Amino acid sequence: MQFDLLTTDPASKARAGKLTTDHGVIETPIFMPVGTVASVKGVHQRELREDINPDIILGNTYHLYLRPKMDILQRAGGLHKFMNWDRPILTDSGGYQVYSLSNRRKIKEEGVRFKSHVDGSMHLFTPENVMEIQRQIGADIMMAFDECTPYPCDYRYAKRSMHMTHRWLDRCINHFNKIPALYGHEQALFPIVQGSTYKDLRARSAEYIANAGAFGNAIGGLSVGEPAEEMYGMTEVVTAILPEEKPRYLMGVGTPINILENIALGVDMFDCVMPTRNARNGMLFTAHGSINIKNLKWEDDFSPIDEMGITWVDTEYSKAYLRHLFKCHELLGMQIATIHNLGFYMWLVREARKHILAGDFSTWKEKMVKQMDNRL
Amino acid sequence: MQFDLLTTDPASKARAGKLTTDHGVIETPIFMPVGTVASVKGVHQRELREDINPDIILGNTYHLYLRPKMDILQRAGGLHKFMNWDRPILTDSGGYQVYSLSNRRKIKEEGVRFKSHVDGSMHLFTPENVMEIQRQIGADIMMAFDECTPYPCDYRYAKRSMHMTHRWLDRCINHFNKIPALYGHEQALFPIVQGSTYKDLRARSAEYIANAGAFGNAIGGLSVGEPAEEMYGMTEVVTAILPEEKPRYLMGVGTPINILENIALGVDMFDCVMPTRNARNGMLFTAHGSINIKNLKWEDDFSPIDEMGITWVDTEYSKAYLRHLFKCHELLGMQIATIHNLGFYMWLVREARKHILAGDFSTWKEKMVKQMDNRL
Repeated sequence: MQFDLLTTDPASKARAGKLTTDHGVIETPIFMPVGTVASVKGVHQRELREDINPDIILGNTYHLYLRPKMDILQRAGGLHKFMNWDRPILTDSGGYQVYSLSNRRKIKEEGVRFKSHVDGSMHLFTPENVMEIQRQIGADIMMAFDECTPYPCDYRYAKRSMHMTHRWLDRCINHFNKIPALYGHEQALFPIVQGSTYKDLRARSAEYIANAGAFGNAIGGLSVGEPAEEMYGMTEVVTAILPEEKPRYLMGVGTPINILENIALGVDMFDCVMPTRNARNGMLFTAHGSINIKNLKWEDDFSPIDEMGITWVDTEYSKAYLRHLFKCHELLGMQIATIHNLGFYMWLVREARKHILAGDFSTWKEKMVKQMDNRL
Repeated sequence: MQFDLLTTDPASKARAGKLTTDHGVIETPIFMPVGTVASVKGVHQRELREDINPDIILGNTYHLYLRPKMDILQRAGGLHKFMNWDRPILTDSGGYQVYSLSNRRKIKEEGVRFKSHVDGSMHLFTPENVMEIQRQIGADIMMAFDECTPYPCDYRYAKRSMHMTHRWLDRCINHFNKIPALYGHEQALFPIVQGSTYKDLRARSAEYIANAGAFGNAIGGLSVGEPAEEMYGMTEVVTAILPEEKPRYLMGVGTPINILENIALGVDMFDCVMPTRNARNGMLFTAHGSINIKNLKWEDDFSPIDEMGITWVDTEYSKAYLRHLFKCHELLGMQIATIHNLGFYMWLVREARKHILAGDFSTWKEKMVKQMDNRL
């Protein structure tokens, strides 16, 4: 695996790069659509490849571990083959889902004992077995097992948790190096900076993570309810410390505006359920602001969903038709909105990259942030 | 509009024909996917056009009347434009849905007063306003307003109801001829044979309907719970009476086997929610029998969904993957199964047509009926 930093924007810390994996090249900055349980919800693999066209998607270790379970994934030859997706995949470590989804969980130094949200069965995630699970999934980029602290989080808890995340990282790296990749392609392990919303903790964590010397680094524990300004503040502290020459992944972020602001702070990779989840609720993101397609005002608006026509659905269907589908709870409504939103997110990061390469990212970003901060 | 009868099978009453409408040619026998409320559930219009490729689809008057309502459809320029589908559309008369879906309904000579299943509002369908509604929808083929009797149905009720359906037909034709088409394309009106499962009533109704001299004729009130043999018996009585040179549409039928048997009895057109509804429940139809994809036996079957590869989904995804999607209630599972089933239904009627034209329909049909009568 290789990361080439191509350009840095003169007026911000935005970067354009190229991440080369055994499953293909990822041009950064990039947004990774979330394919939770081996499916980007409501989207065919063909549409993902040909219409949305992301360089990489994300899978969730917690979900895949519970269904279809590891023996099935391994017999299928890994997640790529199971779901028929031959471009790069990143998997999270399961940590975040364990905290947010399991019925009951107990965090100890050893790891996290939790109850499945599917059938109530008891399971244990440790830094070691999470490395094994991600080897079995076969993601190109694996994430270290961490604790994602909630917001707000008191200082003492945040500090203690951060140190445990660091100790878990050492165990992850140790075990990751011991066990081989299973499917013939290289896998990289990204450690995760924690430290809640405390600048001193974030700085200490970033130093610890930078020292681990991993191929790429991630920022976790943000986008959990804190104000955007606080998120940007933390990103700024962390990207100032993380090595320049390695890719940086901000986990779980965010709105189109959040993404542009964090690109300006030196982040290269993003993932978020927002474009897909909000799509299923009838919310569309566009270059001129967001649309709640269920609003009465669209009832007789027979204009295309989005005149920009980034993906084919934008001009194939009208706003009135899409609104009708949502009012009738038709599956097709969710399908259309999902393709639209993911297409828009991909367009946004690709445009950002173009402007970074052209040297005018910051002025473009300011214009876009203003433009997108609208409800249509 | 024009119907050309091309061939009749030497060993059965199966026919191959060609129905020419202002929105294109329909090669019969044909299956019409059901697009209830301006959407074939779970299928993009692009997939419908390019992958499933039916010559005609069906819309439901009752559903469209309630949502998006007639003023929206009319301002959109009719259903074709509203949903962006430029091939032929057939609409039912709303009668069947009024009986099966509305909370409360009262049938009188005037028409049917019913309560919307959406918001409880009260409405009246009459032979006259159902003609107006279908003019506003703009379907290429409109259906007469009828009463669809339940199964079983006592003889006196069936007889009385049949006569009312005949009187309603006269009112439909009268009103249909008075009001113009709205969107510049021709619309045909098909009357419907009723008479429950009584041969004498079916014969009388078929004679009445034949005498109406419509462009095409339909058989209603079947596929409502009666045994298949009883259905075939009724179809046989009716097709012996309906004019040879006009298309015949058997409403709401059915399984792949039902369709082949009724083609053998001289039916040209079919519609049914079975391929789409069963798909959403994980049931797949194939040339070698049906599959309940949720069964444990498919858990580690990494072979393609259907080796025949009629539509691209059949070879894009494995049985194990599709099963996993259904076990996780993922939207994509329903989407894949729907494309598969509709693709299979289209393949089946197209193959039937080829064999009718080749003169070996009956032997092919016997083989297929045996083959498809399996659970895989």
